Amino acid sequence: MDNQAIAQRLNQIRIVMVNTTLSANIGAAARAMKTMGLANLVLVAPKMFPSDDATALAAGAADVLEHAVVVETLQDAIADCHLVFGTSARSRTVPWPLLDVRPACELAVNSSNTQKIAIVFGREDRGLTNDELAMCNYHLTIPVNQEYGVLNVAAAIQVVCYELRMNAQALEHPSTDTGKMPLDNAQFMAWDEPLATHQQMEQFYPHMEAMLADINFMDPENPRLLPLRMRRLFSRIRLDRLEYNLLRGIFSRVQALSKGTWPPESMQKTIVEVTQGDNSDV
Amino acid sequence: MDNQAIAQRLNQIRIVMVNTTLSANIGAAARAMKTMGLANLVLVAPKMFPSDDATALAAGAADVLEHAVVVETLQDAIADCHLVFGTSARSRTVPWPLLDVRPACELAVNSSNTQKIAIVFGREDRGLTNDELAMCNYHLTIPVNQEYGVLNVAAAIQVVCYELRMNAQALEHPSTDTGKMPLDNAQFMAWDEPLATHQQMEQFYPHMEAMLADINFMDPENPRLLPLRMRRLFSRIRLDRLEYNLLRGIFSRVQALSKGTWPPESMQKTIVEVTQGDNSDV
Repeated sequence: MDNQAIAQRLNQIRIVMVNTTLSANIGAAARAMKTMGLANLVLVAPKMFPSDDATALAAGAADVLEHAVVVETLQDAIADCHLVFGTSARSRTVPWPLLDVRPACELAVNSSNTQKIAIVFGREDRGLTNDELAMCNYHLTIPVNQEYGVLNVAAAIQVVCYELRMNAQALEHPSTDTGKMPLDNAQFMAWDEPLATHQQMEQFYPHMEAMLADINFMDPENPRLLPLRMRRLFSRIRLDRLEYNLLRGIFSRVQALSKGTWPPESMQKTIVEVTQGDNSDV
Repeated sequence: MDNQAIAQRLNQIRIVMVNTTLSANIGAAARAMKTMGLANLVLVAPKMFPSDDATALAAGAADVLEHAVVVETLQDAIADCHLVFGTSARSRTVPWPLLDVRPACELAVNSSNTQKIAIVFGREDRGLTNDELAMCNYHLTIPVNQEYGVLNVAAAIQVVCYELRMNAQALEHPSTDTGKMPLDNAQFMAWDEPLATHQQMEQFYPHMEAMLADINFMDPENPRLLPLRMRRLFSRIRLDRLEYNLLRGIFSRVQALSKGTWPPESMQKTIVEVTQGDNSDV
């Protein structure tokens, strides 16, 4: 996977935290950023920085804190940016261009090849001021429970960074766009065996039905819905080739048992040692 | 906005935290859940609960903690669930059906009208064990920076709950959808039978293994990967109750055959008329 193209885009996007009170939130934000591949943190007049709390919460993302830039005003933090988003939970007196987090992050990532971008997060208790929000091109809002929308600032940064990464991945690797994948076994990226073919399955069902008849579980003259139900069940499962071979091996064993041809006479004495049966290729 | 339909769907989905060490993470998780409209938290053998740390971090989400259910084992936490996702960062020896967080949450929300769903999060330091992951229908993974994928457990819960809410909103209010095609899984929408519960499936697997031992297909002393492969196969299929009963009936018949107790003596003469076996409710 071409992680470098994703990293380049995400490197153009900085996270700005304004007047953060709790150092732990700065640490948690650094960790949230790094897990999603963001590296640029700007702190506007934090109450305390650096701090042990921040470093502890950052875990392995201490490098994000070390490279964090501390400035006095939001103006300083975004001066060289082309596109600025201000996060806002409330609707304001003067409506502003408002984007949900997903389309906002899509716009940010789409613009990141040529532009510098900032996403600005406000104080723990009262967010961004109207003056600060007025410095932003767009307001960004995260859909929340309308009865309790009090998202912690580090949690909000986690959600935004996650959406930035998802959009960067989708842009750089459209074929792996995770939002649009069909729910189907074929998508299971790391499956260890090829799937059984249609042709193989057309041999599978008659074999199963013969076995069910052999054990008197199904009347071949009047099978009712049983074959259909089994077909629906196993077509839903989409067997891989190893599973297919295992199940057919089981059917054959059961058939031999029902016909009295298992265990074969030559094996009767050594049956204890042969318990492994046919699953030797499992 | 019809928040109630969203709330109803999200109420069917529980968050399960296994062996959490830091109380602060439980509190942060409760807050993350409530901001996104989730209410059901189950704690499997937490190191300490309740605790002041958890309550402090939960902020206004103390009610989620108050209603949290504490159980001893993961089995207890998911017994009545129909669909269980286990979060996993690593790829395992035997690949499991793996979904990225977005399609996983879409599947969870789509299924939430008729099913109970659990999303399971592991320990801070080492996640879920292989045995725990094998109890899940799907593994869920959050795309992360490949060089630093150490997502905090509360942050992971925040991302998952955010995706659950986004999908619930899109489903209940398709007009607010930003153009994404819904992952429509017709097979789970209009099924004619309720699905087997996790608890039923935990009786299914030992029964199947006993049957495979009875027919000498599996050595119970050295089953190799066979039980795991079968578990993976049938957790992928998600049996409905009728299929579950049918397969258990087949296992029992095969066992009786292998032990010479089928057909019963009284039936030997009339075997031809009894070919219908146990599938009378098909």
